[in-house]
Amino acid sequence: MISVEEATRRVLATARPLPAETVPLPAAVGRVLLEPLYADRDFPPFHRVAMDGIALAFEAVAAGQTTFPIAATQLAGMVPQPLADSQTAVEIMTGAVLPPGTDTVVRYEDLQFHEVNGQRVAALQVAPPAAGHNIHHQAADRRQGDLLLPAGVRLSPAEIAVAATIGAAALPVARALRVAVVSTGDELVELTQTPLPHQIRRSNAYMVQAALRQAGAESEAFHFNDDQDALRQGLPPLLDSFDALVLSGGVSKGQADFLPAMLQELGVQQLFHEVRQRPGKPFWFGEKPRGAVVFALPGNPVSTFVNFYQYVLPWVRRCQQPQGYRAQPTALLATDFSFAPPLTYFLPVRLELAPYGHWLAHPQPIGGSGDLASLLHCDAFLRLPPELTEFKAGDAFPLVQFRGLGS
Amino acid sequence: MISVEEATRRVLATARPLPAETVPLPAAVGRVLLEPLYADRDFPPFHRVAMDGIALAFEAVAAGQTTFPIAATQLAGMVPQPLADSQTAVEIMTGAVLPPGTDTVVRYEDLQFHEVNGQRVAALQVAPPAAGHNIHHQAADRRQGDLLLPAGVRLSPAEIAVAATIGAAALPVARALRVAVVSTGDELVELTQTPLPHQIRRSNAYMVQAALRQAGAESEAFHFNDDQDALRQGLPPLLDSFDALVLSGGVSKGQADFLPAMLQELGVQQLFHEVRQRPGKPFWFGEKPRGAVVFALPGNPVSTFVNFYQYVLPWVRRCQQPQGYRAQPTALLATDFSFAPPLTYFLPVRLELAPYGHWLAHPQPIGGSGDLASLLHCDAFLRLPPELTEFKAGDAFPLVQFRGLGS
Repeated sequence: MISVEEATRRVLATARPLPAETVPLPAAVGRVLLEPLYADRDFPPFHRVAMDGIALAFEAVAAGQTTFPIAATQLAGMVPQPLADSQTAVEIMTGAVLPPGTDTVVRYEDLQFHEVNGQRVAALQVAPPAAGHNIHHQAADRRQGDLLLPAGVRLSPAEIAVAATIGAAALPVARALRVAVVSTGDELVELTQTPLPHQIRRSNAYMVQAALRQAGAESEAFHFNDDQDALRQGLPPLLDSFDALVLSGGVSKGQADFLPAMLQELGVQQLFHEVRQRPGKPFWFGEKPRGAVVFALPGNPVSTFVNFYQYVLPWVRRCQQPQGYRAQPTALLATDFSFAPPLTYFLPVRLELAPYGHWLAHPQPIGGSGDLASLLHCDAFLRLPPELTEFKAGDAFPLVQFRGLGS
Repeated sequence: MISVEEATRRVLATARPLPAETVPLPAAVGRVLLEPLYADRDFPPFHRVAMDGIALAFEAVAAGQTTFPIAATQLAGMVPQPLADSQTAVEIMTGAVLPPGTDTVVRYEDLQFHEVNGQRVAALQVAPPAAGHNIHHQAADRRQGDLLLPAGVRLSPAEIAVAATIGAAALPVARALRVAVVSTGDELVELTQTPLPHQIRRSNAYMVQAALRQAGAESEAFHFNDDQDALRQGLPPLLDSFDALVLSGGVSKGQADFLPAMLQELGVQQLFHEVRQRPGKPFWFGEKPRGAVVFALPGNPVSTFVNFYQYVLPWVRRCQQPQGYRAQPTALLATDFSFAPPLTYFLPVRLELAPYGHWLAHPQPIGGSGDLASLLHCDAFLRLPPELTEFKAGDAFPLVQFRGLGS
C-alpha cells in the first residue's frame, strides 16, 4: 500500500496536455490560453486625456498666464484638432486624444469658467505643477509587440478584457477534457426508478458529473451491472475514446469486485491499488497506453467523494493547465482531534474565516457511515498525516475543499 | 458623497429574489434550490452491510462458536435470504441488505476460510465485540420525511448526490439573472473593427460579461454612441425586460456625461452618485420602480473593474441567494503602504498563501493608469479604509478577489 503523497504523484504524472480548440471570446472565460497574445499597438495607443477639463501648453502657464480662452471642445472619439494659438486651450474629455500643441491637462475641479464677450474662458484655480499632468502617455503601459498574455494562463475576466482590447474575437484554448463516468453495482437503479427495498438509486455518478462540470470538463455517464461480460464488451470503446474513466464501486475485496483484474485484462496498466488512507483505501488507478487514464474509486459515497477531490480534480486541473501553479491551501484545526490508525485521515470539517485572514477548520466527524448527507454541513476535508495520532487545536494541515466559500 | 460601506448597503438593499425555474439535476449544480427536499425513505433504507465478509447471529459467537459453515452468498442488490440456522453464516458483500436472522458482520480481514467435506467454512480470527458490528443501521443518518436540503442552499456536488438519492430528476432553482451590459462612448469600436488612431476597442463590456458568466448570470451586450436620442429610445426596453443594467462610461463630469440626467428622465430613481473611493468614484446607482436596477459605472477600465467586484457581483449573489451568508475574506498586507486622500483605496495586490492558512497581499500599485493590462499580475484589491493614511505590514484588510486561486 502506498501513501497519499505517492499516490498523488503517480496520478499527476499521467496528466496529458490537451489539444487546442478555438472558441469565441465570451466563451473563453475560465479556459486556458494555448498561444501567446501580443499588443497590436501601444497601450495606450495615443497620449490619452485622463481627466475632464482643458488641455493647454504648459509653456503658457510657466510664463505666468492664468486665463485661457476655449478655442475648441474635443470629446473622446473625436479626431484631435491642433491648438493653433498656445495662449488658448481645448476643453477636453477623458479618453480623448491629447491635441497637438498641448502637453498638459487641468481638471475641472481646478478651474473656474466665465464668459468674456461671448467667449468661454477658463481661469486656473490650481496651476498644474508640470507638463504632462493628467495625461496617460502613449505606450506607458505596453509597447506594440509586447507580450500581453503568455500561453498557459487561465482566462479570467481581466484577461478577456485585454484580449478584447487587441481585437481577439476568438481564442485558441485547451479543449475540454472528456470523461466517462461509470457506475457499477447490481444494487443501483436509475434516478427515475422506484428502488425495491434492497436497492438504492445511483448517486455517485451524479456527484462526479456535477463536480466535473464545475471544473469545466465534459462527461458522459454509463452504468453496468456486476456482469463481467457486459463490462468486457462495454469498457474498451470508452477506454479508446475518452481522456479518462471515473468508475465507482467494484474495487474492494468482495466477490463482485472484479474490476481490477478486468481492467488489466483490457490492457489498462495498474499504477497502484490501495492507498494508506481513510476513507477511500481501495482506490485502484491505471492507464491504458495511448488510451484513457482510469480512476477506479471505491463505491462508498464518501470514499468516492474524498478520492474525487484528492486525485481526480487535481488531475483535471493539471491536464487543463500543465504549468499552472496552485498553492496548497491550509487551515488551522479549531479543536483537538485524535486518530490512531497509521493512515492519512480525511477529516470532514466546516470552515470558518477567522478575522486575520486564515481558515479555522471545525471537525464534523461523520462516524464512518459513508452517508453523503452527513457532508452537507461540511465544506472540506482536513488531510491529517499518518505519522501523528493527536492533532492539536491551532496546528495547520492541508485542506481539500469541496465547496466554494466567499466566491 | 457617501462611503463605500453605505453605497454597498444601498446596492444590496435593492436585491430581489428570483423566481423559480425547473432544471434537470445535472444542470442544477451551482444553482440555488428554491424548495426543500425531504428523505423519501430512511437513510440508509435498510440495515446495510458495511464491509465484505460474513453475516451471522451474535448469540452464536456469545455462546463460544468460532467456525461458521457458509449457508448462502449474498451480493449487493440481491433480495436478502433469511438465515434458517443460527449456527451458519451468510457470505456477504458491502451494500447488501443484512439477512433476517443475522445481526453482525465480520470482515474478511478477521476471517480465515477452509473446506469441510466440500462445505465452505469461515473461522473467526478476531471475534466481533458486540452485535451490530460493521452494519450501517437503517435510518442511522436520516429518517423518512426528514428535511435533507432546505430551500435556499446553493447546490454543490454533495447536494446533487443527495438529490439523486431521493430520485429528484429535476429541481426547482432560482432562474438565472438577466443583465443588459451597455457600453457608451464615441471612442469605442467593435472587437472585429480596426480602430482609427483616436479610437479604442470595446473591452469593458467583455470583462463584465465574462464575470457575469462566471457568476452564473446571463447577459446581453448593447452599445450606444454618445447620442442622447439613441439612448432615450434604446434604454426603456432594456429597463423593462432585464433584471439589471450595467453601463460603463458617461457618468463623470464631462460634457458627454449625460447618463445620470437621462436615466432619471427615463424614470430611474437615483439612489446615489459618487462614492468616497479611488478608483471608481463617479459610480451612479439607481432603480426603476418595477424595472431594472441600474449600475452606471465609470468607464475607465480599472474603475469599471473595481466597481463590478465591489458592488455588482455581491448584488448578483444576493439576488441568487437572499439568505446566503458569505464570510468577508481578509488578507494581511505584506509591506507598508501609504495613501493620504480621505477615500477608500482599492489597492491592487498579488495574493500569496502563507503557511498557516492566511493570505498575504503584496501591493502592486498600477500608477492610476487605468490600464487593465496592469491588473494581469494581480489577484484582488485590498480595501483600505479612508480614515487611515499609513497601512502597516501585517495588518488585516478586507479582500475583493477577482481571480480564483487554489480552486
